[in-house]
Amino acid sequence: MEYHLNDPIAALATVRGRSAIAVIRTSGSGCINAIAGIFSRPKILVNSEGNRVHHGWLLRDGLERIDEVLLTVFRGPLSYTGEDSVEISCHGGPVLTDAVMDLLRSVGFRDAAPGEFSFRAFSNGKMDLTQAEAVREIIEARTDRGRALALSRLGGSVRSLIGGVLDRIKRQAAIASLALDYPEDEGEEADFDLEELRSCRESLERLVDTWNTGRLYQEGIRVALAGPVNAGKSSLFNLFLREERSIVTEKPGTTRDWVEAWLNHDGIPILLIDTAGLRADTADAIEAEGIRRTRELIASSNLVLALADGARGNLALRDFEQMSLDVEDSHLIRVWNKADLAPDAPPGWIGVSAKTGVGFSDLVTEIGARTTGGSPEGDAPVINSARQRALLLQAIGALNNFRVDSGIPMDLLAEDLYEALDALGELVGAVRRTDVLNLVFSSFCVGK
Amino acid sequence: MEYHLNDPIAALATVRGRSAIAVIRTSGSGCINAIAGIFSRPKILVNSEGNRVHHGWLLRDGLERIDEVLLTVFRGPLSYTGEDSVEISCHGGPVLTDAVMDLLRSVGFRDAAPGEFSFRAFSNGKMDLTQAEAVREIIEARTDRGRALALSRLGGSVRSLIGGVLDRIKRQAAIASLALDYPEDEGEEADFDLEELRSCRESLERLVDTWNTGRLYQEGIRVALAGPVNAGKSSLFNLFLREERSIVTEKPGTTRDWVEAWLNHDGIPILLIDTAGLRADTADAIEAEGIRRTRELIASSNLVLALADGARGNLALRDFEQMSLDVEDSHLIRVWNKADLAPDAPPGWIGVSAKTGVGFSDLVTEIGARTTGGSPEGDAPVINSARQRALLLQAIGALNNFRVDSGIPMDLLAEDLYEALDALGELVGAVRRTDVLNLVFSSFCVGK
Repeated sequence: MEYHLNDPIAALATVRGRSAIAVIRTSGSGCINAIAGIFSRPKILVNSEGNRVHHGWLLRDGLERIDEVLLTVFRGPLSYTGEDSVEISCHGGPVLTDAVMDLLRSVGFRDAAPGEFSFRAFSNGKMDLTQAEAVREIIEARTDRGRALALSRLGGSVRSLIGGVLDRIKRQAAIASLALDYPEDEGEEADFDLEELRSCRESLERLVDTWNTGRLYQEGIRVALAGPVNAGKSSLFNLFLREERSIVTEKPGTTRDWVEAWLNHDGIPILLIDTAGLRADTADAIEAEGIRRTRELIASSNLVLALADGARGNLALRDFEQMSLDVEDSHLIRVWNKADLAPDAPPGWIGVSAKTGVGFSDLVTEIGARTTGGSPEGDAPVINSARQRALLLQAIGALNNFRVDSGIPMDLLAEDLYEALDALGELVGAVRRTDVLNLVFSSFCVGK
Repeated sequence: MEYHLNDPIAALATVRGRSAIAVIRTSGSGCINAIAGIFSRPKILVNSEGNRVHHGWLLRDGLERIDEVLLTVFRGPLSYTGEDSVEISCHGGPVLTDAVMDLLRSVGFRDAAPGEFSFRAFSNGKMDLTQAEAVREIIEARTDRGRALALSRLGGSVRSLIGGVLDRIKRQAAIASLALDYPEDEGEEADFDLEELRSCRESLERLVDTWNTGRLYQEGIRVALAGPVNAGKSSLFNLFLREERSIVTEKPGTTRDWVEAWLNHDGIPILLIDTAGLRADTADAIEAEGIRRTRELIASSNLVLALADGARGNLALRDFEQMSLDVEDSHLIRVWNKADLAPDAPPGWIGVSAKTGVGFSDLVTEIGARTTGGSPEGDAPVINSARQRALLLQAIGALNNFRVDSGIPMDLLAEDLYEALDALGELVGAVRRTDVLNLVFSSFCVGK
């Protein structure tokens, strides 16, 4: 994908569907004049200051009313993209927004590619790449904690940390370059501040270490309920839905094979999956296929709750063995269900009654213990972007290579610092490689 | 439902989900000050003129950033509701909008009931009831033609027609009242303009007659594909999807029993339903249940396309008989499918090949002939509200009762005119009965 700058683009910026209002965002050179040509009060629009709202009608061929709208005019650089921009607030039906988009195309607007508005914001210096990534992360947040971490990145927490480190390394690199330009001044080597470089490296290492935490709060974990038919999986599933705050379930997810729902556990999004019952073997082809899919779901989960029908006593332990779950112990929690009717849970099992709720808090505590990714310290920035992590590791590796006392010629040593600078520059977007930019912006939703 | 006026209300006005932006609408007494208390630039907000946009952060407890937002300030009466109002444009994830709504509740906002913003607009004289109904009809429009008709109502076409008739009847009623107050002036009777009243009645009758058209363009019709297994129903269904412009399909609608999709046929929304195959009888219980549901779908459709597998020749006619469709001929179109492989279509059948497309345009023409609701004349207003139709009929009935030459005392005659005025007054909302208002506004979406 190639983004072209400055030409007028438009996109529906709200979710398509029936609602009170919808917002269509436009940006680019000449966009205010173009929209004035289809607005019932063209002069007011053309002469409008920025951040002003105007009421009127969108017109086709100067005559046919398309919708009653509010137009908000933004004058660059004081806009999201940094360009002149108009936001159209119209009625919220799909037929309406389609009609408005058609009208915009008829006066020269092009449909914006995903992320194109943010790309322009980045290109025009309104945000760096870590902030652009944060925009998407905010929209995709599944819990309030995930939102808060992403918002901190949007506020520039990662940018300012990296920016500070960049400046400090740049200074050392400049000293090295000086030594390079005037090799006779060997005494300059003493000016290298190795402590400073180590401190920079440690800052980057601390940031890399937040990756697991960031991913945990943003992407969450998959927890599968597994067990024989009648072990009470669905009852436990429903108990989770009642007790823990259930959050966005985008796909209803109900199929013949499994049911799933997102839970919010202390800010960590948990996708809870109720699988079909597992039997050791079956002659029925359809059932065998269901069991195969259940095993796939289990294999792709981060944590498996293996349910036993405690009321069956020792037989339940045999059932468990016969399921032959291929799951590491650190990813497995054994749940002794129907504890209200059953003998005490055997060692290594957590007694729970999905019916009465007894033992449920123990189970939740155990899940919490298994999913802890380390609480982010105060307001320290946290990353969750694989791209950012890879570049941080690259910069750290380059800094590790730098040894001023190794007897290696100075010009080679300085190269390590420049490699670190390149990696960090790419991280915040100071280095603009097309493939990097596409990677960042192409996963955006349209209209952003 | 009871609406309370003036207290601060808030609602998500865009569709919930992940998108570039979402808009939360607020309105009511003190709403600008309340939001200033959670905004990073409170003074600017409090002192803002109307129709101004301000960039900043929403803060919890004056500290914790909830989101980066644009706030649009509206000062009553120059707002949608007529009250002071703030629209919050925030990032579009559900977690974000939930967090912002929570924040608003914490400073005294109440969740708006469906239609409450429009109810306030109506109460504050910003629109009459026909325009309020049009707001909902625009959002729910399924085709561009339906949108245009609803937009004309929003622009006030029904209001101004009814308003004109109201004024003319009022004048005649005033003349009647004059005769009532001064019964000795019997000569005044001559001032009644019966032609004027007849002309009013005819205007209302023409408006009532547009109801079928309005409903057709707004609600559309249901067309079911019926026929035996292998008659090619799915192929014909897919041909429709390719050839006619397919529009909003809110529910994917794919179940084991049927598939459905909305088509746009000359501005008329058509819900095309591909049913399960029909057999005369079956011993299989599940299949029998499927056939029962298919018959229900057929019974609830406005038009049925009965497909025959033309390649089976005369056997296909026997298949058709065996389906025993309980559909009136005027609602039935017989389709002789596989015409490319089959003998000529028998009389009363339309030969079509879903595979090659041959005959498809004939079929579309026939569907068009069956669904014509009369094209609305030019820009004449069209109604599609059952409430408006009932009140128009009531007014027409009252006007019909009025006979100045019938020897009935004048005071009884005038009552007929007042009854007509009451009905028309209720139609545009001049008469505010709580049950009428609830009927109009409670079917709105929240945020409108």
